[in-house]
Formats: sequence, C-alpha cells, structure tokens
Amino acid sequence: MTENYDPENPFAKIIRGAEPAHVVHEDEEVLAFLDVFPQSPGHVLVIPKSGRPRTLLDATPGQLTAVVHVVQRLARALTDELRPAGVQVVQFNEAAAGQTVFHLHFHVIPRYGADELLPHAGVRADAEQLGALQQRLRSRLAEQRPPA
Amino acid sequence: MTENYDPENPFAKIIRGAEPAHVVHEDEEVLAFLDVFPQSPGHVLVIPKSGRPRTLLDATPGQLTAVVHVVQRLARALTDELRPAGVQVVQFNEAAAGQTVFHLHFHVIPRYGADELLPHAGVRADAEQLGALQQRLRSRLAEQRPPA
Repeated sequence: MTENYDPENPFAKIIRGAEPAHVVHEDEEVLAFLDVFPQSPGHVLVIPKSGRPRTLLDATPGQLTAVVHVVQRLARALTDELRPAGVQVVQFNEAAAGQTVFHLHFHVIPRYGADELLPHAGVRADAEQLGALQQRLRSRLAEQRPPA
Repeated sequence: MTENYDPENPFAKIIRGAEPAHVVHEDEEVLAFLDVFPQSPGHVLVIPKSGRPRTLLDATPGQLTAVVHVVQRLARALTDELRPAGVQVVQFNEAAAGQTVFHLHFHVIPRYGADELLPHAGVRADAEQLGALQQRLRSRLAEQRPPA
C-alpha cells in the first residue's frame, strides 16, 4: 500500500540522487539500473520514478505501460549484448513473495544455461564490472530502433 | 523468434478454442486463465491473443500494454479474493529461463507464506477446484472499478 511506503528505501534514494546506481536507462517515467546483488551477470532492475508505488498494486496505468516497455527494451539489449540462453522477468510483491525493497521493481535476469541463479540479495557485485556492463548496455539501448 | 512459433502449442490451441481452459478474463487483446499445473492455488496465466509472440521479445507495444494491465488487475483480484501474503509475477523466455510453452505468457502466482512453490509444470490441478476458483476470480474482476 502506498500509505506504507518508506521514502528511505534504497530505490527512493537512487531516484532522488541520494544513492549512486549504475543507470542504463532513464526517461521521464522510468529508471533502469544494474542490481548491485546480481543473480547473474546483467541483472537489471526497472522501476517507475514518480509517486510512492510500494508494489504492483499501487502502480498507475501510465507507470505500468512505461515500465513494461523498458523491460522489453532491456530484455532485447541484454539478449543482443550478452547472448544469454534466456531471460527471466520477475516481479515480487510483499516479503512472502520475495520482495526485499519496497518500491515497485521488475527484475530482468539473463540466464546462461542450466546453472543455478545466485541467491536474491546475496553477493555484492564488483563496481568495476558493473561499470563495464553499464556502458555496454547503454550502447546497445542507444542502437535500438525507436519504439513503434 | 516469431518464425519459430509452433501454432500447435497449448496456448495457441486455447486461443482458437481447440483446447479448454478455465478462463477468468478475456478481451480483444488478452486472455487470462488458471494454470492447470498451478504452483499455488490461484496461479493464473496472462497471454496476448494475436500474432505469434513466442517470447517477450516478439510482443508489440500494444500487446505488452494490454497484458501488463490485466496482470495488475489479476494481482488485485487474487489479493482481494484469496488473501495471499504476497504475489509473484514471473515471465520466462526460452527453455534455459524456464519457459515450457512457447507462446508469450506472464505467470501471476499468489504466495501464502514461506512455503515452497510446487514445481513449474508439476502436478495437474483438480478440474472442480479450478472451476470454483475461476468463478470466484471472475466475480472479483467484475467488481473492480474500471481502469482509470
């Protein structure tokens, strides 16, 4: 519920510039950045920027539309750039479903084979590696044809 | 890729009426029905009806918008009707990511606590129980305020 939204959650801080992030896409509605606890290389988070959307239930229609289109663009950019065997899109609502940060977010997770994913919110990634990935994905996104 | 789309996949058959399904929502663009191999009670699948969208990469912008809004409506209906502790939204692309039916689909999966989910594509549900759930969710969706 929006009334339970904690403005000190990490994603709210990233949105207002109080915490750094490896941003790969930003527009008026949406921010996308590399997860610092990646479950696989290229794990990206996509979030709406406005309002106080704690879970999917709180999102406005416009936010949802904007976010899902960036999710698709990132799935394409990850596929083209990192050549994974597949991509998972995952969105958790409430702790019982695996949510750990209470600002609505979509995970876009490349899968490279039958290997297990790293645990959610497990191991912090190397900042230099994240920076290199960030540049590669930004370049790929810039090459994409504009949405129809 | 759309060129690898198999028109005999189970969801294509459901769309054209060649296979039955416990449909909870249908509109011009989107079909939503209960998974016959539910990972938890109330596990719903949401799919676009037109074209040959094998994965997320193939979806048109309009399909994505329509599908994600129904995903949200179902997350709300499941929350109101079944009172889960949380809801997971999951979308798999390619076998390496867990995709088992190669027509784009979003899973909406209620979580009732810390219990493990049943395996994906594991155990077939009882048709009578699915029928009862179908009626409850259709009633809940009918009660929702029209989208803003």
